[in-house]
Amino acid sequence: MSKNNVEQYKVTSEPFYKSVEDEVELYEAAYKARMPMMLKGPTGCGKSRFVEYMAWKLQRPLITVACNEDMTASDLVGRFLLDKDGTRWQDGPLTTAARIGAICYLDEIVEARQDTTVIIHPLTDHRRTLPLEKKGELIEAHEDFQLVISYNPGYQSLMKDLKQSTKQRFGALDFDYPLEKDETDIVAQETGIDVETAGKLVQIAHRARNLKGHGLDEGISTRLLVYAGQLINKGVEPVSACIMTLVTPLTDDPDMRETLEAAVNTFFVK
Amino acid sequence: MSKNNVEQYKVTSEPFYKSVEDEVELYEAAYKARMPMMLKGPTGCGKSRFVEYMAWKLQRPLITVACNEDMTASDLVGRFLLDKDGTRWQDGPLTTAARIGAICYLDEIVEARQDTTVIIHPLTDHRRTLPLEKKGELIEAHEDFQLVISYNPGYQSLMKDLKQSTKQRFGALDFDYPLEKDETDIVAQETGIDVETAGKLVQIAHRARNLKGHGLDEGISTRLLVYAGQLINKGVEPVSACIMTLVTPLTDDPDMRETLEAAVNTFFVK
Amino acid sequence: MSKNNVEQYKVTSEPFYKSVEDEVELYEAAYKARMPMMLKGPTGCGKSRFVEYMAWKLQRPLITVACNEDMTASDLVGRFLLDKDGTRWQDGPLTTAARIGAICYLDEIVEARQDTTVIIHPLTDHRRTLPLEKKGELIEAHEDFQLVISYNPGYQSLMKDLKQSTKQRFGALDFDYPLEKDETDIVAQETGIDVETAGKLVQIAHRARNLKGHGLDEGISTRLLVYAGQLINKGVEPVSACIMTLVTPLTDDPDMRETLEAAVNTFFVK
Amino acid sequence: MSKNNVEQYKVTSEPFYKSVEDEVELYEAAYKARMPMMLKGPTGCGKSRFVEYMAWKLQRPLITVACNEDMTASDLVGRFLLDKDGTRWQDGPLTTAARIGAICYLDEIVEARQDTTVIIHPLTDHRRTLPLEKKGELIEAHEDFQLVISYNPGYQSLMKDLKQSTKQRFGALDFDYPLEKDETDIVAQETGIDVETAGKLVQIAHRARNLKGHGLDEGISTRLLVYAGQLINKGVEPVSACIMTLVTPLTDDPDMRETLEAAVNTFFVK
Amino acid sequence: MSKNNVEQYKVTSEPFYKSVEDEVELYEAAYKARMPMMLKGPTGCGKSRFVEYMAWKLQRPLITVACNEDMTASDLVGRFLLDKDGTRWQDGPLTTAARIGAICYLDEIVEARQDTTVIIHPLTDHRRTLPLEKKGELIEAHEDFQLVISYNPGYQSLMKDLKQSTKQRFGALDFDYPLEKDETDIVAQETGIDVETAGKLVQIAHRARNLKGHGLDEGISTRLLVYAGQLINKGVEPVSACIMTLVTPLTDDPDMRETLEAAVNTFFVK
Amino acid sequence: MSKNNVEQYKVTSEPFYKSVEDEVELYEAAYKARMPMMLKGPTGCGKSRFVEYMAWKLQRPLITVACNEDMTASDLVGRFLLDKDGTRWQDGPLTTAARIGAICYLDEIVEARQDTTVIIHPLTDHRRTLPLEKKGELIEAHEDFQLVISYNPGYQSLMKDLKQSTKQRFGALDFDYPLEKDETDIVAQETGIDVETAGKLVQIAHRARNLKGHGLDEGISTRLLVYAGQLINKGVEPVSACIMTLVTPLTDDPDMRETLEAAVNTFFVK
Repeated sequence: MSKNNVEQYKVTSEPFYKSVEDEVELYEAAYKARMPMMLKGPTGCGKSRFVEYMAWKLQRPLITVACNEDMTASDLVGRFLLDKDGTRWQDGPLTTAARIGAICYLDEIVEARQDTTVIIHPLTDHRRTLPLEKKGELIEAHEDFQLVISYNPGYQSLMKDLKQSTKQRFGALDFDYPLEKDETDIVAQETGIDVETAGKLVQIAHRARNLKGHGLDEGISTRLLVYAGQLINKGVEPVSACIMTLVTPLTDDPDMRETLEAAVNTFFVK
Repeated sequence: MSKNNVEQYKVTSEPFYKSVEDEVELYEAAYKARMPMMLKGPTGCGKSRFVEYMAWKLQRPLITVACNEDMTASDLVGRFLLDKDGTRWQDGPLTTAARIGAICYLDEIVEARQDTTVIIHPLTDHRRTLPLEKKGELIEAHEDFQLVISYNPGYQSLMKDLKQSTKQRFGALDFDYPLEKDETDIVAQETGIDVETAGKLVQIAHRARNLKGHGLDEGISTRLLVYAGQLINKGVEPVSACIMTLVTPLTDDPDMRETLEAAVNTFFVK
Repeated sequence: MSKNNVEQYKVTSEPFYKSVEDEVELYEAAYKARMPMMLKGPTGCGKSRFVEYMAWKLQRPLITVACNEDMTASDLVGRFLLDKDGTRWQDGPLTTAARIGAICYLDEIVEARQDTTVIIHPLTDHRRTLPLEKKGELIEAHEDFQLVISYNPGYQSLMKDLKQSTKQRFGALDFDYPLEKDETDIVAQETGIDVETAGKLVQIAHRARNLKGHGLDEGISTRLLVYAGQLINKGVEPVSACIMTLVTPLTDDPDMRETLEAAVNTFFVK
Repeated sequence: MSKNNVEQYKVTSEPFYKSVEDEVELYEAAYKARMPMMLKGPTGCGKSRFVEYMAWKLQRPLITVACNEDMTASDLVGRFLLDKDGTRWQDGPLTTAARIGAICYLDEIVEARQDTTVIIHPLTDHRRTLPLEKKGELIEAHEDFQLVISYNPGYQSLMKDLKQSTKQRFGALDFDYPLEKDETDIVAQETGIDVETAGKLVQIAHRARNLKGHGLDEGISTRLLVYAGQLINKGVEPVSACIMTLVTPLTDDPDMRETLEAAVNTFFVK
Repeated sequence: MSKNNVEQYKVTSEPFYKSVEDEVELYEAAYKARMPMMLKGPTGCGKSRFVEYMAWKLQRPLITVACNEDMTASDLVGRFLLDKDGTRWQDGPLTTAARIGAICYLDEIVEARQDTTVIIHPLTDHRRTLPLEKKGELIEAHEDFQLVISYNPGYQSLMKDLKQSTKQRFGALDFDYPLEKDETDIVAQETGIDVETAGKLVQIAHRARNLKGHGLDEGISTRLLVYAGQLINKGVEPVSACIMTLVTPLTDDPDMRETLEAAVNTFFVK
Repeated sequence: MSKNNVEQYKVTSEPFYKSVEDEVELYEAAYKARMPMMLKGPTGCGKSRFVEYMAWKLQRPLITVACNEDMTASDLVGRFLLDKDGTRWQDGPLTTAARIGAICYLDEIVEARQDTTVIIHPLTDHRRTLPLEKKGELIEAHEDFQLVISYNPGYQSLMKDLKQSTKQRFGALDFDYPLEKDETDIVAQETGIDVETAGKLVQIAHRARNLKGHGLDEGISTRLLVYAGQLINKGVEPVSACIMTLVTPLTDDPDMRETLEAAVNTFFVK
C-alpha cells in the first residue's frame, strides 16, 4: 500500500527551465554542502519549477509538500495506523525523503504551524537527524537528502513569519518573474502560439505587475499567461481568453478590472 | 458499501440551462485544456446549474462538494476507516473524481479551511497529481479530470479570501442573474405558470436586486422566483405566495420588508 | 439497537393547534411542492407545535433536532461506529428523515455551525440529495421528505446569521404569539383553570411582551402561562404561581421584576 | 461495571433543611406538574441542600451533575465505549435519570456549553423525550423524572447567560442565605458549638455579606461558618478559626482582609 | 502495570520543615474535620514541603498533581484505556487518592481548566463523593481522604481566578518565606555550607524580595538559595554561584540584573 | 521497534566547542549537584553545541527535544499505543532520559504549552520524580539524569514567558556569540577556508549584530558564517556566497538588505 519507492519520486524528463543568472550553479554548490535552501519570490514565478529542474539535474528524487495552516508535524513525519495486528507506522513525506535521500520541498512553509517548522531543525544543522518521537526512533538523514523551502515575502504578516532560529538554518536565493524575452519564449513554447502573440501577453503581464501594491495584491503569473495562450491556441478569441485568464481570476475591484481590460485592449482588438 | 461507480455521478438528463453569452464555448475550450475553472457570481444565479449542464454536455461524471469552514482536507481526499482487518482507506470525493475522470465542483470554496484549498494545488498545475499523504500514494489525475470552484465575490471579507497562489491557478468566468426575457422563460417553464405572471415575478426580483447594498445583502435569486411560481401554480394567491418566498426569507428589517411588499403589490393585487 | 422505524416518528394524536391566519393552507401548498420551509418568530410562540400539527395533518413522520453551536455535520448525517466486525455506519437524524420520507425539523438552525447548515444545501434544491461523503454514498431523498427550519429573528447577531445562500433555499412563514382570545383558550384547555383566570394570565403576558426591547430580552411565552395555570390548578395561590413562572425565570433585574410583579398584582390579589 | 441502580441514587437519611417561606410547598406543586425547576441564588446559600431535601421528601432518586465549561452533551447523555465485542453504549447521568425517574440536578448550568443546555429542551416541554442521536434512540422520560437546574445571578456575564428559549422552560424559585436565627441553629447543630458562639459567627457573616459588590465578589456562605464552628469545636482558638475559614479563603485584598479581621475581632478576642 | 499501591505514596522519611507559627496545629485540626485546605503564598516559599511534612506527620499517603491549563478532568479522575478485552478503566490520581484515603495535593489549581476545578466540588462538601460519570460509578471518599490545593495570589489575573463557589469550599492558610533565622538554618543544613555564608545568601534574598512589584515579578525563593549554597559547597566561587542561581534565572532586565549583582557584591567579593 | 538504548544517545566524538569563560567548570559543578540548568542567549550562539560538548565531556547520553507550541505533555512523557494485544505504553523522550540517566535538553522551552513546562516540575526539585499519570506510575529519575532547557531572551513576549515557579527551578548561564578571535577559528576550522577570509566573514557578522533592534530582529549566527565559508570553499565567489547566506535569509527589507550588502562589499570585491 505504501512502498517508499525511490523511482516514484524521480523526475523522469527534463523540466523546462530557463536560468536567469547563476542560480543553477549556486544551488549546485549549496547541494554539494547539503545546505538547506530557502527560495524566496512571488507566486507563480517559477520556484517550484526550479526545484524540479534541479532535482532532475542532480538526479535526486523529489518529494513536494504543499504546506498549510492545518498541517501537523505528523503529516510530515508520519503516524501510527491501526492494522489487524495492532498499530503500524506510516512514514510521512519528510521521513521518506530523509530515508531515501530525496530533495524534500516544503512549499509555502510559512503557512504551516510551528510544530511543522520546528520539526525540521535537527535536519538542518550538523546533526542531520529526524527524531520520530512518537516511535522512539532517531533517523539519520541519507547523505543525499536536502531540505528546500519556499517563501513568498509579500505574504508575511505580523502573525505569520518564520522564526529567526528557523531562517538562520538556510541559505537563500531570490526569485522573480522571468525576463521579458525568456518569459515570451516560455509562453510560446508551452502553448504553441506564435512569439508575437506570446510577447503581447507578457506585455500585459508587465503592466499588471506594476500595479502590485497599487490595487493588486499580486501580479499576473507566468502560469496565467500560459492559460491565456492555451485558450488562444484552442481558437478562443484573444480578448476573451485574456479576460478569462488574466483579469477575472485576479480581482473583483471594478476599477482594477477596467485598468486590466484596457491593458488587454491595447494589445488585442476584439 | 462505497463503490466509486462512474455511472452514479453521470448527469442523465439534460439540465435546463439558457446560455447568456459565449460561456458554454469558453468553458468547452477551457475543458479541452483541462484548465481549472473558477465560476464567480451572486447566490442563486445559476453557477451550479451551469456546471451540471456542462457535465451533461461533455458527458463527464460530476461530483459536487458544498464547502464549509469545518471541512478538513480529509473530507476531500479520504481517510482510513477501521475495519475488521484493521484500517481500510476510503477515497474522498476529490480523490474519486481524480481517479474516474469526473468534473469535481467545489461549491463556495472560500468557506473551506486553508488545508482544503491547498490540497488542490498539485491538481491544478502541470503536475495534475493528488498526494494522499496519509496513505503514501501519489495519484495521477485521470486525463478527463477537471476541477471547478465557485466563488461569490460579495462574500469575501478580509478574513476569508482565496490566496493569490490559489486564485492564479484558475481561469475564471463571471456569472450574473439571467436576462429578463430568459429568466421569465425559466420561471414559466419550471413552474407551469403563464409567461405574464412569470414576467411580473421577474420584475419584482429586478426591483429587489437594485436594493442590494442598500439594505439587502443579496438580491432575490431565480430559485425563489421558481418557489413563488410553484405556489401560485398550486393555487396560492399570488401576493401570499410572493410574501412567503420573495419577502419573508430575505430580511427581517421592517423598512425593507415594506419596500419589498410594495413592489409585490405593484404587480399583484390581493 | 437503532431501527429507523417510521412508526416511532409518527405523531399519533392530534396536537392542539389553533391556526391564526392561513398558515396551515400555505404550508400545505408548500409541502405539495416539497418546498423547504423556514418558520420565523419569537421563543415559545408555537413554531414547534405548528410543525407537529402539520406532520400529524399530513400524516408524515416527524424528526426534530434541537440545533446548537457544538453540533457537527456528523451529528446530522451520521457516523461510523466501531463494531466487532469493524466499523458500522449509523444514520443521523437528517439521513433517517431523508430515507423514510419524514419531515425533518431543525430547531434554531442559526445556533449550528456552518458545516451543519451547508450540509442541507443539496437537499434543498432540485437535486434533493444528501451526500454521505464519509461513506461515499449519495442518498436521493424520499419523495415525501421535507426540510423545515426555525429561526428567531431577535437572536441574530452580526456573528450568527444564516448565509443568504442558505436563506434563499426556503419559503418562510412569520409566527407570533396567539391572539388574546386564542391564547386564553389554549391556557384554559391545557391547564384546567377557568377562562377568567386564564384571561388574566394572558393579560399579564401582554404587558410583559410590551416590555421586550425595553428591559426584557423576550416576552412571556405561552408555555410559561401554561406553567402558571398548572400551579394554580394544583392549588398554588395565583400570585405565588405567577411570580414563580412569569417573573422569576425571566429576569434578575430588580426594576423589571418590580414592574412584572406590579402587573401580576393588578390582576390577582394575594 | 455500571448498573443504573435506583437505590444508589436514593437519599437515605433526611438531610437537614430549614424552610424559609413556602418553597417546599411550591416545589411540591411544581413536582406534581413535573415542571422543570430553576433554583436561583448566591453561592452556598443552600440550593443543593434544598434539592437533596426535596428528593428525600418526595422519595425520588437524585442525580447531581456539576456543570462546567468543558462538559459536552455526551457527558450528560452518554457515549459509545469500545468493548471486546465492539462498541457498547454507556448511559450518561441525564439519560439514567430519565430512565429511572430520578430528579436530575444540573448544578451551575450556565457554566456548560450550549450543546449541554440545548440537549435538555425536549425533556422540558410537552414531549418529555431525550433523543440519543448518536444511538438513534428516542427515550421517553419516566413519569417521575424531573429536571432541576441552579443558577447564580451574580455570575452571569454578557458572555455566559442562558438563552431565553432555555429559561422559559422552567419555573423558578429565589434562594438567599437563611434568616439569622435559622442560620445560627444550623451552625450550632452541624458543628456542636454553643448557640452563642454560632450567633457570633453568623453576625460576622452578615457584616461580610454587606460588603458584596463593595470589594467582595460574594458573601461568606453558611458552609464556611460551619467550617469555622468545626475548628472551634476541635479546640482551635476562635479568632484563628475565623481567619482561616472566613477571611483567608475569600480575598487577597489587604483592605478587605483588614475589614473582615476587624469584624472577627469585634466578636472574638484572642 | 498500575497498582494503586498505598505504600508507593507514603512519605517515608521526615521532610525537613520548620514551622513558622501555629500552621501545623491548625492544619491538624482541619485534617481532623477532613476540611479541604487551600495553601496561599508566593513561589517557592515552602507550600509543597509543608504538605509533604503534614502527610508524613499524619502518616497519610500523599498524591501530588501539578496542575496546568491543558489538564482535563479525565487527567484527574481517570479514563478508559483500550485493552485486548476491550476497554479498561484507569483511575486518575484524584480517584486513587479518594479510594486509598490519601491527601491529594493539587498544586497551582488556578492553572487548571474549569472542568478540573468543578470536578472537586462533590468531594469538598458534605457528600465527599466523586462521580466517575464516564464509568457510571459514584465513589465515596475514604474516611481519611483530604483535598489540599495551592494558590499563588500574585498570579491571579482577571482571566484566571477560582470561582467563589470553589473558593468557599476550603479553609485557607497563608504562607510566606521563612524568617531570616530559620531560612539561614535551612540553607546551611541542606547545602553543608557554614551559617555565616548561608546568612549572606538570605540577606541577598531579602533585598531581592523587596524588589517584588518594583521590577521583579517574584522574589528569590529558598530553593534558589539552596542552589547557590550547593554550588559554593562544590567549590564554586560565591559571586559566580550567586550570579548563576540568584540573578540570571530571575530576570533579563539589565537594570534589575545590575541591582541584583550589586546586592551580591555587597556580601561577597570576588 | 523502540529500544531505549543508552548507546543510541551517546555523543560519540568530541564536539568542537571553544569555552568563553568558566562556563564548562560552572556546568560541571551544577551537574555534580544535578541542578537543572537554563541556557540563555540569542539564536545560533552555540547553546545546543555546548550541551552536546558537556554531554560528551561528562560521558552522559543526550536526548534533545525541539519544543514547539503544539507539543503536548504526552509528546514528552509518552502515550499508550494500540497493539494487537491492546494498548502498549511508549515512553516519550523525557521519560526515556529519566530512566536511563541521560541529560535531557528541551530546546526553546518557551515555545511549548504550559502542560509541557509544568510536567517537569517534580523532576526539578528534591523529588526528582516524573509521574506518568496516564499510566499510574511514578518514575524516580536515574541518579545521573539532568534537565537542561534553553531560552532566547529576545523572544519573550507578554504572551509567552516561563512562569516564575518554573524559572526558579533552574540555575542559569548566559551565552553570547563567540569572541572575534574564537569565531574566526571556528569558521576557518569548520569550512576549510583561510583565516583571513574567515576573519572577514566574522567582521561582517559584527556589523550585522550591531543592527539588532535597529531593523534586524536577530544578528547573523555563527552557523550562517559557516554556510558562507562552505560555499566559498566549494568555489563560489565570496560576494555571492555572502549574499546567499548572510543577507537573503535574514531580511526582506530593502534598506536593511542594502546596508548588509554594503558591509559585504566592504570586505569582498566581486
